[in-house]
Amino acid sequence: MNEMIENLLSHRSIRKFKSKRLNQQQIETIVCSAQHASTSSYMMAYSIIGVTDDSKKERLAEITGQSYVKHNGHFLIFCADLNRVTIKATNDEYENMLDNLENSEHFLVSAIDAALAAQNAAIAAESMGLGICYIGSIRNNIAAVDELFHLPKHVIPLFGMAIGYPAHHPESKPRLPIDAVYFENGYQDHEDALDRFDEKIGNYYAKRSENNRKDTWTDQMKRRFQKTIRMDVTNHVKNKGFNKK
Amino acid sequence: MNEMIENLLSHRSIRKFKSKRLNQQQIETIVCSAQHASTSSYMMAYSIIGVTDDSKKERLAEITGQSYVKHNGHFLIFCADLNRVTIKATNDEYENMLDNLENSEHFLVSAIDAALAAQNAAIAAESMGLGICYIGSIRNNIAAVDELFHLPKHVIPLFGMAIGYPAHHPESKPRLPIDAVYFENGYQDHEDALDRFDEKIGNYYAKRSENNRKDTWTDQMKRRFQKTIRMDVTNHVKNKGFNKK
Repeated sequence: MNEMIENLLSHRSIRKFKSKRLNQQQIETIVCSAQHASTSSYMMAYSIIGVTDDSKKERLAEITGQSYVKHNGHFLIFCADLNRVTIKATNDEYENMLDNLENSEHFLVSAIDAALAAQNAAIAAESMGLGICYIGSIRNNIAAVDELFHLPKHVIPLFGMAIGYPAHHPESKPRLPIDAVYFENGYQDHEDALDRFDEKIGNYYAKRSENNRKDTWTDQMKRRFQKTIRMDVTNHVKNKGFNKK
Repeated sequence: MNEMIENLLSHRSIRKFKSKRLNQQQIETIVCSAQHASTSSYMMAYSIIGVTDDSKKERLAEITGQSYVKHNGHFLIFCADLNRVTIKATNDEYENMLDNLENSEHFLVSAIDAALAAQNAAIAAESMGLGICYIGSIRNNIAAVDELFHLPKHVIPLFGMAIGYPAHHPESKPRLPIDAVYFENGYQDHEDALDRFDEKIGNYYAKRSENNRKDTWTDQMKRRFQKTIRMDVTNHVKNKGFNKK
């Protein structure tokens, strides 16, 4: 196993950071690494907002309910962005584009582009001795994030990423068995693999050093999807010109 | 700059592969690396289909119009998957979940999870001396791909990935200037940066060794969005239980 793969396998989310801020060169290296990920049809359909303004970080910490959104070395917001491809369009060209951008295909492409870029950023940061945590909870109030960063039409804030010097060393969280995730030549029934995983994760939750409890993965997921969350995401995405037909 | 970042920055898509197939250990290392990417709320909301059946590869090559979908060392399809979280649900629990899964939030989360995993797979493969190419054109006929791999409700094939031993050495494609992609504390106007990039990319297209032509990035994007493509994605995603409200 090479060093690159060892690094990928040793990933864990970091939620406590030292107060030291990233310098400009570190930030540029991370963003440049993000930019070199693959991109669908050369669209590069994402933007990255770096947040250094303390009042904006404070507001994001309120929206997400997560203190490490405020206390970290740097904070990034990854956005799906198909505004950029319209900037040089004439009025007639723009009208046509508006119509095509409403197909779900295009929001999907830009979300995927943004996520590929983000994962390169994460790996680059980790290779520099930094830790990261993805922050999906910026979607707790997606309209407020949109407003806070003045996002135009066809730009959707997808998730944040807290980056910084790690101040704790959490355990790596077990992953599903490979036969619950990887299938050859067709989708396969994998209830047995989930049963095995529930047993394993039950032991993990019972014994881990922080927040130990009695739980399984499938119970956790069933609980999660019993309650509605973020019901405003659908309309926000539509109002910004995507997923309308 | 460390070796990990050098590898990220030297990425280029590979579209010609030697005929040598990946062995089981290589495939497992790649999938295992994918699984260690971050995942939203521990959902691990994706599946990966490995395609070894020649007739299925042939059909995918027809759908995508890309020969390297057939001729490669291995082919993966990354799917958004929220079927798995429903497998152990009782009928009543399932009815409730169905309703919640219809919010765009959940399709978005699973697409992002799948893309983060895929980018880890890409980086792992590249670190092993292999090349990769993402294949978005499996969405040229998303219903046919769904049928070919017997995908259940709440599973959407997002993109493929051809992997193999590189049989060519394409140039690295220029990326947007950093000031067209990265903004601090708010979205910024970046038309100037696009003008600079158009000039740069114009030179690149005029001079590159294969397929040289007169073009700019903004013209390319404007042309792309004048025509409708993949208008069936919206309804396919809805029919599979997502993006309905």
